[in-house]
Amino acid sequence: MLHVVIAPDSFKGSLAAHEVAAAIARGVTRAIPDAAIRLCPMADGGEGTLDAVLAAVGARGVRRSLQVRGAAGDMVEADYGLLDSTGDATAVVEAAQVVSITDPHGMAVRIEHRSTEGIGVLIAALLDQGIRRFMIGLGGSSTNDGGCGLLAALGLRMEDADGNAIAPTPAGLAALSRVDAAALDARLAQCELRIMSDVNNPLCGDGGATALFGPQKGVAADAVATLDARLARFGELAEIAVGRRAAGLPGAGAAGGLGFALRLVGGRFSSGADVVAALVGLPEAMVKADWAITGEGRSDAQTLLAKAPFIVARLAAVESVPVTLISGAVDARALPALREHFTGCFGLPHGPATLDACIAGAVSLLEARAEEVARVFAAGMKSTR
Amino acid sequence: MLHVVIAPDSFKGSLAAHEVAAAIARGVTRAIPDAAIRLCPMADGGEGTLDAVLAAVGARGVRRSLQVRGAAGDMVEADYGLLDSTGDATAVVEAAQVVSITDPHGMAVRIEHRSTEGIGVLIAALLDQGIRRFMIGLGGSSTNDGGCGLLAALGLRMEDADGNAIAPTPAGLAALSRVDAAALDARLAQCELRIMSDVNNPLCGDGGATALFGPQKGVAADAVATLDARLARFGELAEIAVGRRAAGLPGAGAAGGLGFALRLVGGRFSSGADVVAALVGLPEAMVKADWAITGEGRSDAQTLLAKAPFIVARLAAVESVPVTLISGAVDARALPALREHFTGCFGLPHGPATLDACIAGAVSLLEARAEEVARVFAAGMKSTR
Repeated sequence: MLHVVIAPDSFKGSLAAHEVAAAIARGVTRAIPDAAIRLCPMADGGEGTLDAVLAAVGARGVRRSLQVRGAAGDMVEADYGLLDSTGDATAVVEAAQVVSITDPHGMAVRIEHRSTEGIGVLIAALLDQGIRRFMIGLGGSSTNDGGCGLLAALGLRMEDADGNAIAPTPAGLAALSRVDAAALDARLAQCELRIMSDVNNPLCGDGGATALFGPQKGVAADAVATLDARLARFGELAEIAVGRRAAGLPGAGAAGGLGFALRLVGGRFSSGADVVAALVGLPEAMVKADWAITGEGRSDAQTLLAKAPFIVARLAAVESVPVTLISGAVDARALPALREHFTGCFGLPHGPATLDACIAGAVSLLEARAEEVARVFAAGMKSTR
Repeated sequence: MLHVVIAPDSFKGSLAAHEVAAAIARGVTRAIPDAAIRLCPMADGGEGTLDAVLAAVGARGVRRSLQVRGAAGDMVEADYGLLDSTGDATAVVEAAQVVSITDPHGMAVRIEHRSTEGIGVLIAALLDQGIRRFMIGLGGSSTNDGGCGLLAALGLRMEDADGNAIAPTPAGLAALSRVDAAALDARLAQCELRIMSDVNNPLCGDGGATALFGPQKGVAADAVATLDARLARFGELAEIAVGRRAAGLPGAGAAGGLGFALRLVGGRFSSGADVVAALVGLPEAMVKADWAITGEGRSDAQTLLAKAPFIVARLAAVESVPVTLISGAVDARALPALREHFTGCFGLPHGPATLDACIAGAVSLLEARAEEVARVFAAGMKSTR
């Protein structure tokens, strides 16, 4: 019997990872009815991570929610997860639940006024519940505040030259003169904070949060240097106040600098996809797999920077399992590099098609593409050589 | 060693069949370097048939050309082929070389004034050379004259009520009163005329040439009935004059009724793709093949009506060889039917893409798609089940 592991990321803005996995599974089953299929929907720390983790842990996890302020200050209902909630519980927090780049309210105000304060409030509430273990997924955020909002909610005081508290936003940081960590929540020191991210850039500079991800969040080209300088200044003062270096560490630039804030208070950085892979049991599933299929909304050169399909390919390689990539689209320029990790890279459309048509028909296109690919795999199996 | 037969049709208006085959072969070779590849570029009687036949027969064939009148009466350089020209030669004539639907001169005049006379002139010239064996590929024509132009050039006299010769065009047929076959070239009776076509509709009626293919050649919706009636009347009179029935036979409606004219003078009807398949040695190639790949510009429900990929699939089925379809585009609605004949159906694009981009990038897209598909086939081969 052929054992197939199906471990796609979500198609962001279109399909959840478990929906992608289910569609691929239907296609494979039509082509190879007796295949033994193991579904391992994946995530990389960004949007969809909470869903993937809760789906993976089954009865070990529960979904909860709390109202906190979103990036723009309006109230949002933020889901989070509790694993092993009867014992030493772990909270699964997803930044995109609070400050998602797909939230129209958050995106309606200028980025200078968006804050991660709500995430800090959520963490404080979980600390109040006695939670000391956190898995915090970054990615898919609309903010670029260096995590000053989160730290403010957890007790970091930031003042202007007159000693007044500033707004914990990029706009507020313009007047930052002094940072005081005396009232920073002491319970953070007792916590295990696991940061899940798919990027490992530092807080500032050419490869920093503002320069790399600012533009897609709405930072004007001529504002990059100014905002970057504000985060750099905030970073320096906060590091001195807390007594720990973090701005230059990998992942400090994740989620607009939220990575910096979490590393500053002792967070450990992990590849989000690696953490999720372990949770969904992907390394064990690969041991008896004959074939794996992964995918994501769009595959390009970034895919090979620790995105979920790349982590799937790496785990498959350990067991010499071929991995086929079925994504919404594949950047042809990245094919030579992708081919070093994937055995067959396929996009969705059957011919000329618009992006809207691909998104609208994603489920049936996924089923069809998976079926066609599986039929070729099966034909290879039956060939006598 | 894996034996792969690559037998695509042309991507009409974009790539010749041998170019398609070569691109697929490069992709397969990159994926499976030690594969033994046999190229069998295909055609179905329409545009590209002469190229495919000449490529298949190698030194047995030569390419010649003759200036004759195109559909609009202007001179065109029409290529034809001579097979075994030192002995009992066979001429390969392609209607689209004279009256191609892609010829802007022919399409510039109204369809009522387009004629197949030039094809008759070409055949007469070949008769003068002593040729008595013909393979005549239909398809891809701009004409809808019932073949009256061809027959006029070969001596059929068509008169109006006053006994004047009419123009051998749909416009001229409006005044047709009498047909006389007394001067019809007697050498035709000594000929073997093999008609190669991919359609088998009759001359007239709802499934006839005018109703089915008239509109794409420029017949206005309200002119279909009138033109169809003219062809019907011409057909009746010509059948009586020649003393043979032909209008109702399969393929009489091919190439705007050119099929009728050729059947009327004794032509035998064949599936063009079957004839080409035999010439390129496809049945023999399948005997030791492990895998076949075919394709065409666009695959849809029509593909299963004796288009080249369908003939390839049928020949492969005889030897239980799986056939994968790689086309410019695949109509998703036809997938359920196509799957009964093809093991994996793939279009070219890697993601959302325009038709123009697919055509402009066809060679590299074909190479890439073939490579990805072959990598999956090879992975199936290596799987241990």
